[in-house]
Amino acid sequence: MKRYLMTPGPTPVSPETQLAMAQPILHHRSPQFMDILAKVREDLKYLFQTEQEVLMFAATGTGAMEGAVSNTLSPGDTALVVDGGKFGERWAELCEVYGISIERLKVEWGHAVKPEEVAQRLKANPAIKAVFVQANETSTAVQHPVKELAQITKSLPGTILVVDAISALGGYPLPMDEWGMDIVVAGSQKAMMLPPGLAFAALSPKAWEFVKTSKCPKYYFDFAKQLKSQQKNQTAYTSAVTLTMGLQQVLSWIRAEGLDKIFAHNRRLSRAAKAAVRAMGLELYSKDNPSDVLTAVEAPAGVDGQKVVAELRKRGIWIAGGQAQAKGKIFRIAHMGFIDELDLLGTLGALEIVLNDLGYKVELGIGVKAAQEILGKEA
Amino acid sequence: MKRYLMTPGPTPVSPETQLAMAQPILHHRSPQFMDILAKVREDLKYLFQTEQEVLMFAATGTGAMEGAVSNTLSPGDTALVVDGGKFGERWAELCEVYGISIERLKVEWGHAVKPEEVAQRLKANPAIKAVFVQANETSTAVQHPVKELAQITKSLPGTILVVDAISALGGYPLPMDEWGMDIVVAGSQKAMMLPPGLAFAALSPKAWEFVKTSKCPKYYFDFAKQLKSQQKNQTAYTSAVTLTMGLQQVLSWIRAEGLDKIFAHNRRLSRAAKAAVRAMGLELYSKDNPSDVLTAVEAPAGVDGQKVVAELRKRGIWIAGGQAQAKGKIFRIAHMGFIDELDLLGTLGALEIVLNDLGYKVELGIGVKAAQEILGKEA
Repeated sequence: MKRYLMTPGPTPVSPETQLAMAQPILHHRSPQFMDILAKVREDLKYLFQTEQEVLMFAATGTGAMEGAVSNTLSPGDTALVVDGGKFGERWAELCEVYGISIERLKVEWGHAVKPEEVAQRLKANPAIKAVFVQANETSTAVQHPVKELAQITKSLPGTILVVDAISALGGYPLPMDEWGMDIVVAGSQKAMMLPPGLAFAALSPKAWEFVKTSKCPKYYFDFAKQLKSQQKNQTAYTSAVTLTMGLQQVLSWIRAEGLDKIFAHNRRLSRAAKAAVRAMGLELYSKDNPSDVLTAVEAPAGVDGQKVVAELRKRGIWIAGGQAQAKGKIFRIAHMGFIDELDLLGTLGALEIVLNDLGYKVELGIGVKAAQEILGKEA
Repeated sequence: MKRYLMTPGPTPVSPETQLAMAQPILHHRSPQFMDILAKVREDLKYLFQTEQEVLMFAATGTGAMEGAVSNTLSPGDTALVVDGGKFGERWAELCEVYGISIERLKVEWGHAVKPEEVAQRLKANPAIKAVFVQANETSTAVQHPVKELAQITKSLPGTILVVDAISALGGYPLPMDEWGMDIVVAGSQKAMMLPPGLAFAALSPKAWEFVKTSKCPKYYFDFAKQLKSQQKNQTAYTSAVTLTMGLQQVLSWIRAEGLDKIFAHNRRLSRAAKAAVRAMGLELYSKDNPSDVLTAVEAPAGVDGQKVVAELRKRGIWIAGGQAQAKGKIFRIAHMGFIDELDLLGTLGALEIVLNDLGYKVELGIGVKAAQEILGKEA
């Protein structure tokens, strides 16, 4: 059976990328591989829209998140954590592990943090050295207003904004330098269209100043050490050679295609997906800023969201269910990276069949048609 | 030009493994991938010769080394570090980062640690909670006597033996449970014949007791959390899916072939390589316990070891030079994993040509013949 990954990570890997990764392995200190790293370093800056070096680690995104904490803060420091989903919770756990005192800004699942609340918290407690947030909270499919948050932290010399953009970067506009984010963390297996196994972090000059005074222990995720190595077109420890060869291929494609075109593609699929599920009489789970890279849908009354996921799997289509408190209540469809119109239309068509099978009556084709109308208009 | 990796990591990846990794990507929480993890978990126990769970991380070996420190010790603890090469130094750096007080047992490069010296140090300072050592110190091609070291630590309830087997595991006999090593760390890109990007660690019941009291911060490399996840056929964070699919293929092959046969193969190549360079009038750099998985050779007087490496590269053959204090003085040829007789004979033949070109006169064929005599005898 054909298998369609419509999950918000891992996303599908293109045959061209698979071939790039299937090339004979290179030594990680060879001139050939150093040439690849040199090219990748430049293309990553394009992707992150930054002039800063983008650090690469053989790890998944959580590793770079850990590095963002352990390289900038010290035990006893205070951080503000925006916690509006499963991945907000991860920032809190990471801070706790390193003895960082946290203020938690709880945001109801499905909602975005209000910038004025962050501003208030920072005003009330000037000791806060870092604000941790997700650009796109994958568990709720909500985009937090990181541009507005950066406006706030930019004026505070003692506070950095740390953005987990693991499911966001490359999916919709997040210009790091222009907006003034201090740390942006990304992972290979979402909009970057690669298998899991590479993690990234870019730091503003302000964040690099924080690195100088940080006292948390770090070794594998030592940002300063990695920076020094990359400036010589190496990595501090052995590079994940095959994944990096895939990265080169993907980044060349992204650069040739252009970020604007990719962002517009994802946004178009997103609008189509959202129009489709609304036409089916369903509600979005994301009440504020619904994401451009995935759509979270409330399961209709009497239907278990996990069953929707399970039934679609029987048809070869992999979407994601809800996590933690949203488990069973929602299902999530990704539309980023190597996912296209046909993938989406087919998924929506199968979703209508499955919903009917599970007892939620929906006119066949009604959602597909709503999606077609969007996709037809904005080619 | 064909390219031959005769380096002690990365080593060549077989076409079969490349194909396994080029399969369409699976979701890391799918039943299909969980089946792969279940199989891999069993086969890793075979490879490590242990009944304990072998933890898997999306990282290179250094990540698992860091975890071995941060999961078992606490700031202020004392550790004994056997430092007889570049990777011994890494243990020392890691301990220092985590505030572990270290006693350094310096071993001259090219030599193995003497078990009685370790015993003396442990007797003199009963506060030592861990002994860190390399099974195979890749920078000097020396095998440290970890079996004998385990004999010593086994009788000390307050001391664990932590073995970096990154370039050793799967290359020659290192039965973890039988010898009583407490932590064995490995990486994917050496005798395991995979690209870099997976790191492994297995812990004895005694080491797991240490985990309970450890107070160092850890998150991405949290051993207890990873153990819990693996027991459900998952990883704590996103799995490196494609590398794990390659791992399944490699481990199936290793199991079918049998460890004994693989160890004998490497040993045979090792004996042939060593006989060959001696026949060329060259000296081994490894004065004690020369390694079964690579051969370190002293460059002849007047010849720069780096030039030997560079000239062989022009012929498509990649061997390694010396690191740190050995740079320029030696060159190193790997014989493990997916490296075979033909690779070795060709390398030795090219080496003779290159040595003559560099002004060291050696009769063409003399080393190759010495290798042939070994290889012919012990098929």
